[in-house]
Amino acid sequence: MRVDNFGAGPCTLPLPVLEEAQEEFLDFAGSGMSVLEMSHRSDVYSAVHAEALSLAREVSGAPAHFEVVVIPGGATMQFAMVPLNLLGNRGRGAYVAAGSWGVLALGDAQRWGDSYCAWDGKPHGYTRMPVAEEVAIQPDTAYLHLTSNETIGGIRMVESLDVDLPQVCDMSSDFLARPIDWDRYDLVYGGVQKNLAPAGMALVFIRRSVLENISPVLPRMLDYRWYAEKDSLGNTPPVFPIYLMGKMLKRLRDLGGIPGLEERTARKAGLVYDVIDQSDGYYHNPVVRRYRSHTNVVFRLPTPEAEARFLRESQAAGLVGLRGHKSVGGCRASLYAGLEVDSAARLASFMDDFRLNGA
Amino acid sequence: MRVDNFGAGPCTLPLPVLEEAQEEFLDFAGSGMSVLEMSHRSDVYSAVHAEALSLAREVSGAPAHFEVVVIPGGATMQFAMVPLNLLGNRGRGAYVAAGSWGVLALGDAQRWGDSYCAWDGKPHGYTRMPVAEEVAIQPDTAYLHLTSNETIGGIRMVESLDVDLPQVCDMSSDFLARPIDWDRYDLVYGGVQKNLAPAGMALVFIRRSVLENISPVLPRMLDYRWYAEKDSLGNTPPVFPIYLMGKMLKRLRDLGGIPGLEERTARKAGLVYDVIDQSDGYYHNPVVRRYRSHTNVVFRLPTPEAEARFLRESQAAGLVGLRGHKSVGGCRASLYAGLEVDSAARLASFMDDFRLNGA
Repeated sequence: MRVDNFGAGPCTLPLPVLEEAQEEFLDFAGSGMSVLEMSHRSDVYSAVHAEALSLAREVSGAPAHFEVVVIPGGATMQFAMVPLNLLGNRGRGAYVAAGSWGVLALGDAQRWGDSYCAWDGKPHGYTRMPVAEEVAIQPDTAYLHLTSNETIGGIRMVESLDVDLPQVCDMSSDFLARPIDWDRYDLVYGGVQKNLAPAGMALVFIRRSVLENISPVLPRMLDYRWYAEKDSLGNTPPVFPIYLMGKMLKRLRDLGGIPGLEERTARKAGLVYDVIDQSDGYYHNPVVRRYRSHTNVVFRLPTPEAEARFLRESQAAGLVGLRGHKSVGGCRASLYAGLEVDSAARLASFMDDFRLNGA
Repeated sequence: MRVDNFGAGPCTLPLPVLEEAQEEFLDFAGSGMSVLEMSHRSDVYSAVHAEALSLAREVSGAPAHFEVVVIPGGATMQFAMVPLNLLGNRGRGAYVAAGSWGVLALGDAQRWGDSYCAWDGKPHGYTRMPVAEEVAIQPDTAYLHLTSNETIGGIRMVESLDVDLPQVCDMSSDFLARPIDWDRYDLVYGGVQKNLAPAGMALVFIRRSVLENISPVLPRMLDYRWYAEKDSLGNTPPVFPIYLMGKMLKRLRDLGGIPGLEERTARKAGLVYDVIDQSDGYYHNPVVRRYRSHTNVVFRLPTPEAEARFLRESQAAGLVGLRGHKSVGGCRASLYAGLEVDSAARLASFMDDFRLNGA
């Protein structure tokens, strides 16, 4: 029996997508082989690849002056590639460190050079995002790096920051679940293993003029230009995540694209936040309300004992993956694209019952 | 109907492995979710991960003073990481360029610094490997980089090179199909998408003393030490290739480990080379016989028309992926671990029929 999976990633994928992949797993499109066994230069795979990237452009609304590429390794590889490609020897990146992911992105950037923290969420307990006036830009800054949603604190950017710098945004945890302000960004990326696919790669959008200004000579796998020139097929790509991303994107398109996913995500989050807000303080969400994440709802119960019992009993009820990140404890419900609204409703109702009846 | 797939990678995987993955695709190990949907910190996935890496050590015979890690991105990412980690600011790498892969590895290394070609197979038409005396080592060389098997020319190293330098070996195309001379190597790597798994990562063995001497400060995803310290779980790993690599390695172990795979691979290659050698020159293999690859058998027919008809009719007979690499033309049969001996026998018999009866 399939459970309701609130894990923070890798995370639940829609059952119809998995069933389709299972059905054609041994013989894809009449080829007599699995999609896993196919040359990445074959006609059959080429069509899968082209469709997945073209759907990424269509569903995201990326304008023609952005390249769309996929790169092995998830967002953490992008923490290395963004400064390597965009800084070269010129200047440094400013980083908003509003949570663990921003802190890690900054740390990796600093291993190449001279990037710095332009806003630190730590004094605020990682409970909110900054406003533009708080972001302290130093001279010779090439870009401002943001994380649109921090999964551990459970906070999200509400609007883009009006800062006079090219911006780079890690959208791993709410990719395509909110409009993308293309005018503001030079580069938008995300690991795919939350809203878009199984683990194994990042989807990256890069403004073409940025590519033209990359100066360092880089090994091919670390050079954005190579992916753009070769349509992400310069070497053997991570075939299976690309193939499943295509199926996911088709589904997201049919569910209304970004507006549809945004609305659906907000609806799921609303169900859980409503229970929290109507619990007379039994459940507590520590985030400044305006910045509450729609994809990661964090909450505490009155005592560690209550939390332990909540996690045990929810698990037994088939609601899994609700343990908060080990660095902060408590509970967390991740509500990614693959999670059905019904699953969020079941969680909300379990939370109500647990509070009222001790579950 | 499943075909006989002689593609050069991604390539055929054993049907029992695929069937097992298909069977448990929606609900792995009673977890109520796919292995694709699981937290990489969960107990269920942790066991899968640990078993795959431990089988890699067991089947390869890697000694305890080697670390075993998996890294997203295939061998091409290693072309970037090897010089970045091993050279730092000290010296350069010597590269044997016995074919396309050696040439590409050298090219990527030269994008970071001062590596050079220590032996060039081009004047020999890429039809053989060097002997130790031919390899020209320059001062301040940190390592010698080899490719154990070149897939396009269809040649392989026969024995390791007696050169007084730490050696690094790209074994992508015959990984675990031959003994590994652990005393000789500091680092052994390969993309997994030939003998071991679907595409998406490299399996890397690194001598521990090498790790201890890495000097540069590197972003985590590009730092071998991070993978070793974190058991390749520092961030979300490429879950699906790791999971399937575990199943493949279990199978390889049961088939006799490296000696078993070596023997099986030689047997498949023997079937095809025998047809070539007994064809009165109708089929022609251009390689210096001693260096003939066991995993990639290249052959030409008397005319381009005969080759075109051979490719057409073999395809129609369910023998697919036999077209040679576009840079050289002709035909190529790749005989990776997932290919059954029966498939090679069917190809041999088709080749005989084609020659004798015009198929």
